[in-house]
Amino acid sequence: MDYRETARAIKQDSVKLGALGCEVRNGALYAIKKALIENKEAIFEANREDMEQAKRESLPAPILGRLKFDEHKLDDVTSGIESLISIKDPIKQTVFRRELDEGLVLERVTCPIGVIGVIFESRPDALVQISALCIKSGNCAILKGGSEAARTNRALFDVIRSAGLAAGLPDGFINIIEDREGIDELLKCDDSVDLIIPRGSNAFVKYIMDNSRIPVMGHADGICCIYAHEDADVEKSVRIIMDAKTQYVAACNAAETLLVHRNAANKLLPALAKAAEGKVALRGFSDVKKIIECETAKEEDCKTEYLDYILTVKIVDSIEEAIEHINRYGSHHTDCILTESDEAAEKFMTYVDSAGVYRNCSTRFADGFRYGFGAEVGISTGKLHARGPVGVEGLVTYKYRLTGNGQIVADYAEGISTFKFREL
Amino acid sequence: MDYRETARAIKQDSVKLGALGCEVRNGALYAIKKALIENKEAIFEANREDMEQAKRESLPAPILGRLKFDEHKLDDVTSGIESLISIKDPIKQTVFRRELDEGLVLERVTCPIGVIGVIFESRPDALVQISALCIKSGNCAILKGGSEAARTNRALFDVIRSAGLAAGLPDGFINIIEDREGIDELLKCDDSVDLIIPRGSNAFVKYIMDNSRIPVMGHADGICCIYAHEDADVEKSVRIIMDAKTQYVAACNAAETLLVHRNAANKLLPALAKAAEGKVALRGFSDVKKIIECETAKEEDCKTEYLDYILTVKIVDSIEEAIEHINRYGSHHTDCILTESDEAAEKFMTYVDSAGVYRNCSTRFADGFRYGFGAEVGISTGKLHARGPVGVEGLVTYKYRLTGNGQIVADYAEGISTFKFREL
Repeated sequence: MDYRETARAIKQDSVKLGALGCEVRNGALYAIKKALIENKEAIFEANREDMEQAKRESLPAPILGRLKFDEHKLDDVTSGIESLISIKDPIKQTVFRRELDEGLVLERVTCPIGVIGVIFESRPDALVQISALCIKSGNCAILKGGSEAARTNRALFDVIRSAGLAAGLPDGFINIIEDREGIDELLKCDDSVDLIIPRGSNAFVKYIMDNSRIPVMGHADGICCIYAHEDADVEKSVRIIMDAKTQYVAACNAAETLLVHRNAANKLLPALAKAAEGKVALRGFSDVKKIIECETAKEEDCKTEYLDYILTVKIVDSIEEAIEHINRYGSHHTDCILTESDEAAEKFMTYVDSAGVYRNCSTRFADGFRYGFGAEVGISTGKLHARGPVGVEGLVTYKYRLTGNGQIVADYAEGISTFKFREL
Repeated sequence: MDYRETARAIKQDSVKLGALGCEVRNGALYAIKKALIENKEAIFEANREDMEQAKRESLPAPILGRLKFDEHKLDDVTSGIESLISIKDPIKQTVFRRELDEGLVLERVTCPIGVIGVIFESRPDALVQISALCIKSGNCAILKGGSEAARTNRALFDVIRSAGLAAGLPDGFINIIEDREGIDELLKCDDSVDLIIPRGSNAFVKYIMDNSRIPVMGHADGICCIYAHEDADVEKSVRIIMDAKTQYVAACNAAETLLVHRNAANKLLPALAKAAEGKVALRGFSDVKKIIECETAKEEDCKTEYLDYILTVKIVDSIEEAIEHINRYGSHHTDCILTESDEAAEKFMTYVDSAGVYRNCSTRFADGFRYGFGAEVGISTGKLHARGPVGVEGLVTYKYRLTGNGQIVADYAEGISTFKFREL
């Protein structure tokens, strides 16, 4: 199969989708919400089949939890759609208007990116969220979900597609890829696909970067660090560290490394060891092992995203050492300082080169919903375009519109005309 | 030579540069401006040597013109630096502040991208502009200029580096690569270099994309199209077409293709042929050749960036055909409609998927100076991050700062706390 022709047709439709007014896109979102509720039994049935197969194949419990699509998940996605309907149109917004010279007016106007490929994991609710974000922002979506959720994804896709088409969206507004080979076909479509958002393992993201010219937005590792400064409040710190590590270990914003200032170690580490007992395996360097009993850490552990109940623990001599460690070993995702000092917090938040720099709260807050974006298409640790949790705003770009009445550059080059630059 | 260790040191310095206040960065720009003027004789002397060698090697006149760095070019770059000093700090700006819950405050703050590699052509004034843009935006720059300008670039670099260091910028704020092999070394530094901006041929940009994981911002082809609608004013149109084609043929924003509505062809084409005589070779499809005498165009010509006094000419039956042609064969750089109809202009500017969509003016206006940005680091035809001419604003990203007093995610997951989302 050559996907390139299909992708070109989607590209042509993306221009039509981007030209539609907000009322049409919002109307489609409303129709999709309604259709999901009306067709919920068929969707739940498809999900039951996926769940049964997953159980037969003995997939681990956390995956089963993510795979499940029930009344509760349906509520979540429909209220997500509602909140997207209520937000301001992200496209067709004039960012600035500038008169370059009399009768020569430059405008910068937001517009969709075009065609976006999203490869996501086992959660079928992600399919609904991503589709809704793309519709709101006027982008055509090409979706590839986890194979465990194939039946649920197909059921959701069919409902969204029918409702969207009936509401006036162009044919290519949503597309699905259902096999692994399809991903390789997609990667060749650099003349039609504008962006790929891979949500998956580090190795998978690197594979995509190495095998396509299409720009990639997303994150590879999620090595989030917490640094406890010398004045860190012990009780508050232990609570935050335990939440950041254990509230959901498989998440990219879970903490993987704890750095403790030497002056705080004697108080903090025993309290942490107590809280972690039977829950989290602490893996410490030699200085740490002098204070508490724990596993032995190696340098490799500082670069490891465990996604498990394990935490690397290291003692540092200064905030500068902590910052250097984080900028070197962290993944520029989300890092937190525990301190009561404004000065230390300011230093940490300025010098740590990450998408999220936190003070006295759990790294698990790094999420589009928790940031108030309504939904997220993923989290970016890249620095271009969108950084951190990516909502609808990360799916738009802009174009420059210049309107004149015969102006030519030669007149300006030869001094016959001069630019005036007046903001309108 | 392994450049990776050097790049890592630059990366560490980039955090220091980004933390400096605007007054330090502006002070450095002022000192650099002063030093360039004080050391102009040494710079001019280096440039004379480059020019002599270029003449001995019989480089073409346009390259000699770009290579020249004289009193006039010095005036240009120093006034460019002045205008950069006067603009608002692009970093450390709080884009929004939102209270997620009582005492849990999210801020989005602009910050530098980090380390930016720029590979540019023979113009030595580009070295000064790019350095100044990077200093203003708090980014460390790694520069590789054209080999014809090696002596001038080295002289400019030495002056900028000394003045910047004396003004308090960190050691790695500016760096130079002086051989082709250095580029390949640079491409391996994906753990330290955040962005590469290649200004060069299509083949060169593709080479970089294929040989590095570092994100690339720039443009490959510059195939700009002009479409003359059925009601186009003949005199105005011919003037704009001739300017867009001939004012500077080697520029990426020069027009390469003219599309003419069938109903306008009988009037417009003879007038254009007359104006083009002896200046521009028109290359027309068969319909065009029925109206005027000209060379014969093939499909390949629609995809060709001539960078020469040649223009592809094609007759189309509708504005829709023109839009489809441009979205298919153009390079999404800058395209123009010639029309007196607001409706046609709106349609064209909405459906043409390019960084610049123009009405009744020359495509040659697509330039950071002419847009009022003060300077540009390049023009982007990509859709991510920055699009069109890229000024200082295209060199910044942002980070999220979240400040709490012990908040954990478990409390929100379990319904003990709920998000309030209040804009501050």
